[in-house]
Amino acid sequence: MLPAEVYHHAVIVMRMKPGDQFEIVAADKKVTVMQLERVTDHAATARVCKKLEHTVELPLQVTIACGLSKKDKADWIVQKATELGAQHFVFFAGDYSIVKWDKNKQGKKLTRLNKIIKGASEQAHRVMVPTVSYFENIKKIPLEKYSEKMVAYEEAAKEGETAVLAQLVSRLKKQKETIAKQHLIAVFGPEGGISPAEVQYLRDNDFLLTGLGPRIMRAETAPMYLLSALSFSLELS
Amino acid sequence: MLPAEVYHHAVIVMRMKPGDQFEIVAADKKVTVMQLERVTDHAATARVCKKLEHTVELPLQVTIACGLSKKDKADWIVQKATELGAQHFVFFAGDYSIVKWDKNKQGKKLTRLNKIIKGASEQAHRVMVPTVSYFENIKKIPLEKYSEKMVAYEEAAKEGETAVLAQLVSRLKKQKETIAKQHLIAVFGPEGGISPAEVQYLRDNDFLLTGLGPRIMRAETAPMYLLSALSFSLELS
Repeated sequence: MLPAEVYHHAVIVMRMKPGDQFEIVAADKKVTVMQLERVTDHAATARVCKKLEHTVELPLQVTIACGLSKKDKADWIVQKATELGAQHFVFFAGDYSIVKWDKNKQGKKLTRLNKIIKGASEQAHRVMVPTVSYFENIKKIPLEKYSEKMVAYEEAAKEGETAVLAQLVSRLKKQKETIAKQHLIAVFGPEGGISPAEVQYLRDNDFLLTGLGPRIMRAETAPMYLLSALSFSLELS
Repeated sequence: MLPAEVYHHAVIVMRMKPGDQFEIVAADKKVTVMQLERVTDHAATARVCKKLEHTVELPLQVTIACGLSKKDKADWIVQKATELGAQHFVFFAGDYSIVKWDKNKQGKKLTRLNKIIKGASEQAHRVMVPTVSYFENIKKIPLEKYSEKMVAYEEAAKEGETAVLAQLVSRLKKQKETIAKQHLIAVFGPEGGISPAEVQYLRDNDFLLTGLGPRIMRAETAPMYLLSALSFSLELS
């Protein structure tokens, strides 16, 4: 017998018929494929078709926080980073951002981003749909909930800094039991980069200054690098 | 005294004056910043300003071979993958590709891609500019020069295959001395994927069927994932 809220969603909202399949997501984010059997006016039964052994979500929560760049870069970032497993997005007007979202624009922009995120989540078979929010400057981003904080720092890359990200990843890998409770925020500057004042603010708030390899990447490419590196290290290695 | 061809390029072609700086790339791909000192009609001297200790090129050669997808996906792939360190691009009309480049189009398309690659190389401070070529189908791609061959295979990802890429990377990491001689080709299907016949052909040619994590990525995202994972593992870890 299906729980009342599952019955309601499957039979009333989604209008499923006996034989139709649906997916349920358990607390550990693992997916079970179910098939509807008998349906009456007030109840339904379903059988388990298949339990998927792997989860499609990254083992820790990752928030990608990006300075605003011009054109459709935000669209692009949320689409690709959703495919790559980010769970939350934050956009902020950076000191070097040449665009801002004024009060009138914000709602429209966020609606658009949420729509792109939803599409990308379906494409990537995500079980959770990432969230997105906007802040007027970097200092407005609430930081209490993050257990790990980093900023992608081009100057570190230029100086050949290679160890910080590897150390962060190796620390995460050791936390097998508790990694699901970890939440990493990774800050990326807008085109034009992150200002010295912003770097100082992040430093003061215990952010790791992290190089992402020896090549200088565009603002929108760096989050993809980070998410891919996290996935490879934590999901495939 | 500068070698004749460096003199020619710096003084005659680039019209440099004493005090101007230029970069030279040694056989090990490391960069030395030089400053022009005395210039005469037939010769010039320069002094070493700075030897950059790290190389900006991936330690092995990587060819990204992609089935053709519609719209401007090829533009996008070469731009981002150049930032991420790919050295060669191959595009091919896959069995499931819904576009092809006919004879008339090929030259124009390749010119456009070369221009994007050049821009991205400068952006990323690359010391070599990646090449690009086109083949009418997957079987026309010459395979002799590759020491490692892999195909990104979505079915492997769906089944939870997690080991093949990690094994490939760990094999590469062990080849510290000889890694510069290694050349990996990574094949990615077009939108719509790689056909069973293509998979069989690649299998017969010793390609590794490689999963890229549990999330299904768009055709253009998968090469970014691979290059980021290679960079993180081989350059930062």
